[in-house]
Amino acid sequence: MKPSLPQGTRDFGADTLRRRKYITDTIKNIFELYGFDPLETPSLENLETLMGKYGEEGDKLIFKILNNGLDNPSKRAQAVLNFEHVLAGKNNKQITERALRYDLTIPFARYVAMNFGKLTLPFKRYQIQPVWRADRPQKGRYREFLQCDADIAGTHSLISDTELTEIYIDVFKKLKLPVDLKINNRKILAALAEVTQSTDKLNELTIAIDKLEKIGISKVKEELSAAGFSEKNMSVIENYVSLNGTNHEKLDRVKEIVGATDSGKKGIEELEFILSYLNSSLSEDSKATIKVDFTLARGLNYYTGTIYEVKAKNVQMGSIGGGGRYDNLTGLFGVPGVPGVGISFGLDRIYDVLEELNLFPENIYEPTQVLFFNLGKEESKNAYQLMQQLRRNDIKCELFYEDSKMEKQFKYATRKNIGYAVIIGSKEMQDKSCVIKNLEKGTQETIAQNDLFKYLTAAFLRF
Amino acid sequence: MKPSLPQGTRDFGADTLRRRKYITDTIKNIFELYGFDPLETPSLENLETLMGKYGEEGDKLIFKILNNGLDNPSKRAQAVLNFEHVLAGKNNKQITERALRYDLTIPFARYVAMNFGKLTLPFKRYQIQPVWRADRPQKGRYREFLQCDADIAGTHSLISDTELTEIYIDVFKKLKLPVDLKINNRKILAALAEVTQSTDKLNELTIAIDKLEKIGISKVKEELSAAGFSEKNMSVIENYVSLNGTNHEKLDRVKEIVGATDSGKKGIEELEFILSYLNSSLSEDSKATIKVDFTLARGLNYYTGTIYEVKAKNVQMGSIGGGGRYDNLTGLFGVPGVPGVGISFGLDRIYDVLEELNLFPENIYEPTQVLFFNLGKEESKNAYQLMQQLRRNDIKCELFYEDSKMEKQFKYATRKNIGYAVIIGSKEMQDKSCVIKNLEKGTQETIAQNDLFKYLTAAFLRF
Repeated sequence: MKPSLPQGTRDFGADTLRRRKYITDTIKNIFELYGFDPLETPSLENLETLMGKYGEEGDKLIFKILNNGLDNPSKRAQAVLNFEHVLAGKNNKQITERALRYDLTIPFARYVAMNFGKLTLPFKRYQIQPVWRADRPQKGRYREFLQCDADIAGTHSLISDTELTEIYIDVFKKLKLPVDLKINNRKILAALAEVTQSTDKLNELTIAIDKLEKIGISKVKEELSAAGFSEKNMSVIENYVSLNGTNHEKLDRVKEIVGATDSGKKGIEELEFILSYLNSSLSEDSKATIKVDFTLARGLNYYTGTIYEVKAKNVQMGSIGGGGRYDNLTGLFGVPGVPGVGISFGLDRIYDVLEELNLFPENIYEPTQVLFFNLGKEESKNAYQLMQQLRRNDIKCELFYEDSKMEKQFKYATRKNIGYAVIIGSKEMQDKSCVIKNLEKGTQETIAQNDLFKYLTAAFLRF
Repeated sequence: MKPSLPQGTRDFGADTLRRRKYITDTIKNIFELYGFDPLETPSLENLETLMGKYGEEGDKLIFKILNNGLDNPSKRAQAVLNFEHVLAGKNNKQITERALRYDLTIPFARYVAMNFGKLTLPFKRYQIQPVWRADRPQKGRYREFLQCDADIAGTHSLISDTELTEIYIDVFKKLKLPVDLKINNRKILAALAEVTQSTDKLNELTIAIDKLEKIGISKVKEELSAAGFSEKNMSVIENYVSLNGTNHEKLDRVKEIVGATDSGKKGIEELEFILSYLNSSLSEDSKATIKVDFTLARGLNYYTGTIYEVKAKNVQMGSIGGGGRYDNLTGLFGVPGVPGVGISFGLDRIYDVLEELNLFPENIYEPTQVLFFNLGKEESKNAYQLMQQLRRNDIKCELFYEDSKMEKQFKYATRKNIGYAVIIGSKEMQDKSCVIKNLEKGTQETIAQNDLFKYLTAAFLRF
C-alpha cells in the first residue's frame, strides 16, 4: 500500500512548524499583553451546535462524523431508513450527531452561553486551533487550517473595538509586515441602504459592494440594477463607493450622503471615537496604516458595528485578517443580550506572505549544538556519559548511534546544521580528554573532558 | 436551544490550559535537548491508512468522517447500497474515506514511508497532538485527548533505547513527580514462551502475565491452564513472574530460566547494555527509579525489544507513560526494514497526578499586571494612551471598558488577580499625574504619568 494524505491536508515538518510557531507566538504574546486569556474547545461539537449557523452553503461544508456501532445487525434495517433521512438533507442522530469545528466563533459563543453565570465579564479570550471545512482544495485553501481569534464578550464599549485595531497593528509591526488596515462600520452601510430605499435589500447591496475591487463599478451596477435598484439610487451608491481623501475627509464626505439618518450618525460617531483614540496612542507610521474604507462590507450577516480587514502590502494575496462587532453573540444558545467584538488572523496566508517577502528571521531554528562522535563500544559509553552532563545543563546534544565511518558522522552533523563535534577515541578516553571541533571554522582543540561544559558555554557566548 | 458538549470531550479554560502547557512545555524542551524535531500530521487521515492497524477492537473505535455531497439526488439510490456495505463492516469510499487520527504512531509511520528518500536517518521526531477514540467515556478516559510521543526511526542502536529512558527520568524530575520506570524486553518474554513450549501461544502468555498485578497469580494460572499450559510449564512461569531482588539479581536469576535460548540471551544482553549506560550517567536517586520488571508485557503486538512503562508513586493511577522498540515501523506502508523505538506521555493522567499531589508550581499564571480605571470619557482616553505605552513595553495591562462605579472596577481587578490599579481622574489628567495603587498591600501614591513605566518596572523587580 502506497500511503497518501487526504486532499487539502498537510504534514508539517520541523522547519515549517518553527516558522508557524514564530507567527502564532507573536500573536499569542500580544493577545496576552492586552489581557486576553486562552481557551480551547473540543474538535468535535454536537452537530446541532453547528448546523444552521453558517448559512446553507456553510452547512454543506461541515465535516460530519459517522456514529460508531452502526454495524449492529439487529439495527441495520433502521439504520438504512435513518440514512435515507440524511440523504434527504435532514439531521439524523442515529447516523451522525457530531461534527468537526468549522470556525472558532460558534464554539466560543457556545462556551460563553454554557458558562454564563461563572464567567467574569467582559470575557476576553483568545483561541488558536485548527478548523475543518469540506471546501474544494486550491492554492492557499485547505480543509484543515489554523485560526487565531481574539474576542471580547459582554461590553458595548468601543474601547474594545479600538484595542483590537491596535492588536492588528502591533502584531504586523512585530512581524515587520507592512499592511493596510481597513476599517468601516456596518451601521454606515445600513444607512446607505436606508437612503437608497433598499433596507430590505441590505444583503444584496453589501454583497455587490463587497465585490467592487474584484469586478469594478460597472459590473457592480449591473448587479444592483438586476436587484431592482433605480438609476438615481445607483448614482448615490456610486458616489458613496467613490469617496476618497484622508480618513477625516472621507468621514466628512460620507456625512453628506448618510449623515442625516440615525444609523449613519451612529456609525460615523463610532468610527470617529475609534480614530480619535488611535490618534492619541499611535505613532505616525502606524496611523498611516489605518484606512477608513466605506466599501468594506465583510460577508457575514451577523456583524452590526465596526468591521475590519487587513491586507498585506507589496504582495498579491487576499485578506490576512478580519473581524467585527456583533450584537448578539449567544442569543442562538439561549443567552440573549451579550454583545461581542472579535478579530481573526489568517495564519496560512500570513505564512505565505512572510515567505514571499522573505521576512522570517534567520535564527528561528535552533539546531542541536553538539554532536558526539561514536568511535566504538567503550568510547561511545564515555561520550554518552559526558553528553548527559551537557544535556542536564541545557545544551542540545546528540550522540551518533552507530560507530560508522567518520565521514558519515560528519555528514550527519552538516545535514542537521550542528555547530560542534566532540570526538573521543581510545587515547582521549584514557586521558579523560576530548577533541572539540568547530564545524563551521574547521578548527579543533584537545581539552580535558571536565572542561567541556565551560568551554562550550564560553564558545556559545562568543556568538 | 441549550448547548452542550459531545460526551467525552472538554473545554479547557485559561487555568487548565496554562497547567497543561506547563507539562507539555517541560516535555517538549527535553525532547529538543535530546535532538528531536517537531512534526505535526493532519487530524484527518485516509481511512485505509488507519484501518487494520489497531486490531479488530481498535478499528471499531476509529471516528469516521461522512463524505460530503451525499445528498445529490441522482446518486441517492447508489448511496443507500454503498451504506449497506458500510453496515456490513466493509469500507466504502463513497460513504466514508477519511477518519480522525487514532494515535501518533501510525501517522508517523505513514510520514516516514511517504518521505523516505528525503529524511536524514536516523529520524528523531516528537509530536504533541490530540487523538480521537470512540471509547466509552469514563473517569480519566476521553474521546479527544492529547498524546506526546517521541520516536527514533532508522537505527537498531540501543543507545536510542537508553536515551528514551533518560528522557522519562529527566521529564519527571523536572515535574518533581516521583515515579517507577519499569523496563523489560519482549525477547525475554518470547524466550519464556520458548522454554514453556508455547511459542505459538506467546500472545495468550503475555496477555495473562500483563494482568498479574490486577488479578493475582492464581487467576493468571487459571487463564494459562485454560489456554492449555501444563502444570510443569505453569510452575516455570510462576517462578519467572516471582523473580525479585535488585535489577542485577533479577537479571542473574532470569538467566537461569531463559538464558539458554538465543532469544533469552539477546534480550538479557540488550537490557544489560541499557542498564550499564544508565549506570554511567545517572545520579543514585535516578538509578533507583529504574525497575527491571519481567512481568511487564505491554499489550501491543508490534513491540519486539525494549519495552517501558511509567507509574507515578504515592497515587492510585494507571501508567502515565509507555513505549518500546518495534522492528518494522513502515513495512505496512511499503518501506520494509526500518526499525524504530518510541515513548509516549499520558498528558491527562500526568495532569491529574500533579493536581492530586499538589505539584503544580504557583507562578504558572501571569495575570494582567495593571488595570487602568475608567473614570469617564476624557479620563479614559488619557488612560488608554498611557496604557498603550506600557503594553508596547511588554507590560500586561487592561483598561476597564465602562466608567462604572469604582467598586465594580476594583472587583474586576480582584477577580482577575491584577496587582496594580492606575487611576486617572480629572485632577490627575490636568496634572499629567496618576494614582498608582498596590492592590495587594492597599498602599497608593501619586506620581507623574511620565514616570509610570519606570515606577512599575522597579516595582515588578522588587517581587
